[in-house]
Amino acid sequence: MAQSQIEAAIKLLLQEAEELSIGGQIAELKQLPTPLEFARDYYAKNAPVVIRKAVAHWPAVQKWTPDYLLNKLKDKIVDVAVTPNGYADGLATQDGKEYFVLPLETQMPLSELLQRLDDPMGAVHYIQKQNSNFSLDFPELAEDILPTDLNFAQQCFAKDPDAVNFWLGDERAITSMHKDPYENLYCVVAGYKDFILLPPHQLCCVPRRRYETGVYKLNSNGQYYIEPFLNEGEPQHTEWVSVDPLSPDLGAYPQYAKARPLRVRVHAGDVLYLPNYWFHHVSQSHKCIAINFWYDMEYDSRYCYYRMLEQLTS
Amino acid sequence: MAQSQIEAAIKLLLQEAEELSIGGQIAELKQLPTPLEFARDYYAKNAPVVIRKAVAHWPAVQKWTPDYLLNKLKDKIVDVAVTPNGYADGLATQDGKEYFVLPLETQMPLSELLQRLDDPMGAVHYIQKQNSNFSLDFPELAEDILPTDLNFAQQCFAKDPDAVNFWLGDERAITSMHKDPYENLYCVVAGYKDFILLPPHQLCCVPRRRYETGVYKLNSNGQYYIEPFLNEGEPQHTEWVSVDPLSPDLGAYPQYAKARPLRVRVHAGDVLYLPNYWFHHVSQSHKCIAINFWYDMEYDSRYCYYRMLEQLTS
Ligand SMILES: O=C(O)CCC(=O)C(=O)O
Ligand SMILES: O=C(O)CCC(=O)C(=O)O
Repeated sequence: MAQSQIEAAIKLLLQEAEELSIGGQIAELKQLPTPLEFARDYYAKNAPVVIRKAVAHWPAVQKWTPDYLLNKLKDKIVDVAVTPNGYADGLATQDGKEYFVLPLETQMPLSELLQRLDDPMGAVHYIQKQNSNFSLDFPELAEDILPTDLNFAQQCFAKDPDAVNFWLGDERAITSMHKDPYENLYCVVAGYKDFILLPPHQLCCVPRRRYETGVYKLNSNGQYYIEPFLNEGEPQHTEWVSVDPLSPDLGAYPQYAKARPLRVRVHAGDVLYLPNYWFHHVSQSHKCIAINFWYDMEYDSRYCYYRMLEQLTS
Repeated sequence: MAQSQIEAAIKLLLQEAEELSIGGQIAELKQLPTPLEFARDYYAKNAPVVIRKAVAHWPAVQKWTPDYLLNKLKDKIVDVAVTPNGYADGLATQDGKEYFVLPLETQMPLSELLQRLDDPMGAVHYIQKQNSNFSLDFPELAEDILPTDLNFAQQCFAKDPDAVNFWLGDERAITSMHKDPYENLYCVVAGYKDFILLPPHQLCCVPRRRYETGVYKLNSNGQYYIEPFLNEGEPQHTEWVSVDPLSPDLGAYPQYAKARPLRVRVHAGDVLYLPNYWFHHVSQSHKCIAINFWYDMEYDSRYCYYRMLEQLTS
């Protein structure tokens, strides 16, 4: 009785959201919204929007080629995430056991990274630090995104970004499905990114569980393996999404059949507003470069409802 | 197990909302917000706010005394809701049966209404039609609320109000607790209104059930009685809130003990923004006059979560 009441409540949630077309499309704008339009039509509704050519005027969009970066940054040492399969922060199996695996984090001169990106047989390299690495590690490039002109969002969020991140990637690098407690303005500078999105209210369609946490290591034969990630000798665990939206295993995860993933390609010069708690899976073109701005989210009643849903589907 | 899961989920909802102070206070402003501030800080969060003196400049706030209205409106015939107890659209018991009762709707010259408002022994009279009666019935008064200056809300909602209502009341007239699918800008012109508010996420604390619908009639002895309200000969039913927040019967409705009602007095010249789906109970000073603007709400994911909660607590 109560179980069927939970099912009925979740069914109603999915059904009404679908009827009202909530999370049923990604809006597209051809010009910048005003701060008020952005606040009212997207932020207040926790609804994504792609703003085409919003940052097409950034010098970076014309300039940032591998050669330009090499010239500008000289042979700077950069932080790089390396994985054998392209999945940094993703699931992988070793000896029949599934892990949530962190990448091997290493450093190398930019020239070496660019060479490795062009080696289709080698490990997968990705600049993907999410610690405001654009502001911290690449001050030389700051002038190339001026005027930043994301005032519509800055005024709406009414705070400075918590992090501004720089991404430079291999086409084999994939960010597996997850969500973040941030309002995200994702700006593609070169190439394109492909996003697969799921609205938070579709949580019940998204299988997830706790995995033992591992980290990639390289052995003396040049082979990657997963080492359990210990804290004070104790294995750690991470809750992660189990399904791969690129080839969902509906046998194992039949609930995903009810998900209504949205797809959008974000081209150089475009900006995607990705609202807090939306699930996202990201892949990209070869040597795609992007900058994103993370703003702390507001914890409002929508968040509390989401937490209730999480509890109901646990 | 599933029942306790529902309880745990609702407990989490109440607890996190309380910790994050959502629905835990009514913000107050001393000056008009900009449209962006209003959209971002109140509308987007479904959070009420009182804006003190926001319409204090309306000529109406100086002018609208009973004498002025009589002078201006001559002896206009007005639509009045009459009840023996002050509860139009409220619960009442007759012959041991509880009804949701509509008022007797009648018409009388304004002078007669004003006299009756001064008769503490008579029935309770209230101008409280919610069909845009200010725009429809009182065009003579329109100039007295110019410049309306509620641009901050108009621009945020980006639509014209669906209804502009005029309220002129007896201090015994009480609007029992309910919610509306509207964004509400409630402007007090003379006297004051006392609001008791409950945020939508506290739904589980608000007992409610379906009542048979009745309507007040007057018999030939001048006594009021409840007549069942029939449609094609069939009794009708209305879901209504069972508890009276002025004297909650916690024996009958123990769940109300967990409610955290908010109280605010809105004075002449003040505006209350009452977001959609907030429960509200309203009482008033003698001959209080008010104008409110109802804007159609947007049906977003927060609404769908609310509907899920409704299903879980049904
Ligand atoms: O670009 C990517 O690979 C991932 C981006 C992402 O997950 C984020 O910005 O939150
Ligand atoms: O002023 C009142 O008596 C009730 C107001 C109300 O319920 C509303 O504006 O929705």
